[in-house]
Amino acid sequence: MWQLDAPTLITVLTIIVSVAGIVLGSIAPSIVEGIATKTALEAMARQPEAAGDIRTTLLIAMALLESGSIYVLLIVLILVFANPLLELFVF
Amino acid sequence: MWQLDAPTLITVLTIIVSVAGIVLGSIAPSIVEGIATKTALEAMARQPEAAGDIRTTLLIAMALLESGSIYVLLIVLILVFANPLLELFVF
Amino acid sequence: MWQLDAPTLITVLTIIVSVAGIVLGSIAPSIVEGIATKTALEAMARQPEAAGDIRTTLLIAMALLESGSIYVLLIVLILVFANPLLELFVF
Amino acid sequence: MWQLDAPTLITVLTIIVSVAGIVLGSIAPSIVEGIATKTALEAMARQPEAAGDIRTTLLIAMALLESGSIYVLLIVLILVFANPLLELFVF
Amino acid sequence: MWQLDAPTLITVLTIIVSVAGIVLGSIAPSIVEGIATKTALEAMARQPEAAGDIRTTLLIAMALLESGSIYVLLIVLILVFANPLLELFVF
Repeated sequence: MWQLDAPTLITVLTIIVSVAGIVLGSIAPSIVEGIATKTALEAMARQPEAAGDIRTTLLIAMALLESGSIYVLLIVLILVFANPLLELFVF
Repeated sequence: MWQLDAPTLITVLTIIVSVAGIVLGSIAPSIVEGIATKTALEAMARQPEAAGDIRTTLLIAMALLESGSIYVLLIVLILVFANPLLELFVF
Repeated sequence: MWQLDAPTLITVLTIIVSVAGIVLGSIAPSIVEGIATKTALEAMARQPEAAGDIRTTLLIAMALLESGSIYVLLIVLILVFANPLLELFVF
Repeated sequence: MWQLDAPTLITVLTIIVSVAGIVLGSIAPSIVEGIATKTALEAMARQPEAAGDIRTTLLIAMALLESGSIYVLLIVLILVFANPLLELFVF
Repeated sequence: MWQLDAPTLITVLTIIVSVAGIVLGSIAPSIVEGIATKTALEAMARQPEAAGDIRTTLLIAMALLESGSIYVLLIVLILVFANPLLELFVF
């Protein structure tokens, strides 16, 4: 007999969705950060005297790129720890 | 008869999802870190005198790239060890 | 009659998932580490005087790349040895 | 009648999974180690005077590459010799 | 009637799996060792004065490559000679 009540369904769904979300949500930021790093390193090889400028720019850019992953992490943590929709149920 | 009660379902699901998540979640960071390392080594071969700058930049960038894997690891560990939704069940 | 109770199901699942996970989880890191090694060796052939810098950079980068495999290994070991969800069952 | 009780199922599964895992798990490390060796030998032919540096780097890198296979071997040995989940059964 | 009791099933399975495993498990190491040998011989032809270095490197690398096959052999021997899971059965 396959009987799935509301709390079980919500738990199951949260587990699947949170892992899938954080996995998918960090792919795109990782790739663009990798491309940015690659370009910065190539630029340093071409203009070694500009290494300081290039590194500073890279770090600021990566901090901004990182925000993409952090938003996903934030939403997942909210869903796992403090999902306000769960108060709809009278447990 | 195939009877799967709530705790079993959640345990089974967590096992599958956590391993699948950490496997998939570490592919993209690994690849971009590999590309960054490759580029850094090539840049060193072209400009040996900039090796120090290149290495410093590579390490900072890889620490940021690593964060992609670490977010996935964090979510997986939370789900395995301290899933707060499990308190919904009256065991 | 095919009757699979909860402990059997979980054991069977853990065996399959842990081996599949560690196999799949070590493919991507292996490949990028191999590419990094290849590039380092080629860079040494081009700039033998930079061999020390290249080797140091390679080793630090590979230690970070290795972390991808280690996260997978960590999750697998947790699931095999200390799966806290198993306490949900009243054995 | 095809009746497969829990211990038989687990034994059968462990045999299949452990051999399949160790076979598949050693393919990727073998290939990248082969590529690394090939590159090292070619690099030696191009820069014979850097042979010492190249060999040292190759060996350290291969020891790290080997870790991919060793993680798989570790998980397989744990499952075969000391699967803690088997204590769930009351034999 | 086709009645397969547990010990027969396990014996049959072990025979099939161990042979299949050792055959498949030695393909990848064999191929990469062949490639490494080929490259070493070509490198010696190009730089005969580096033949000693090349040979030493090739032999150490092949010993490491061989480990892929040896892990498979180890698991197969354990399954054939000392499968600890067989103690689960009361023969």
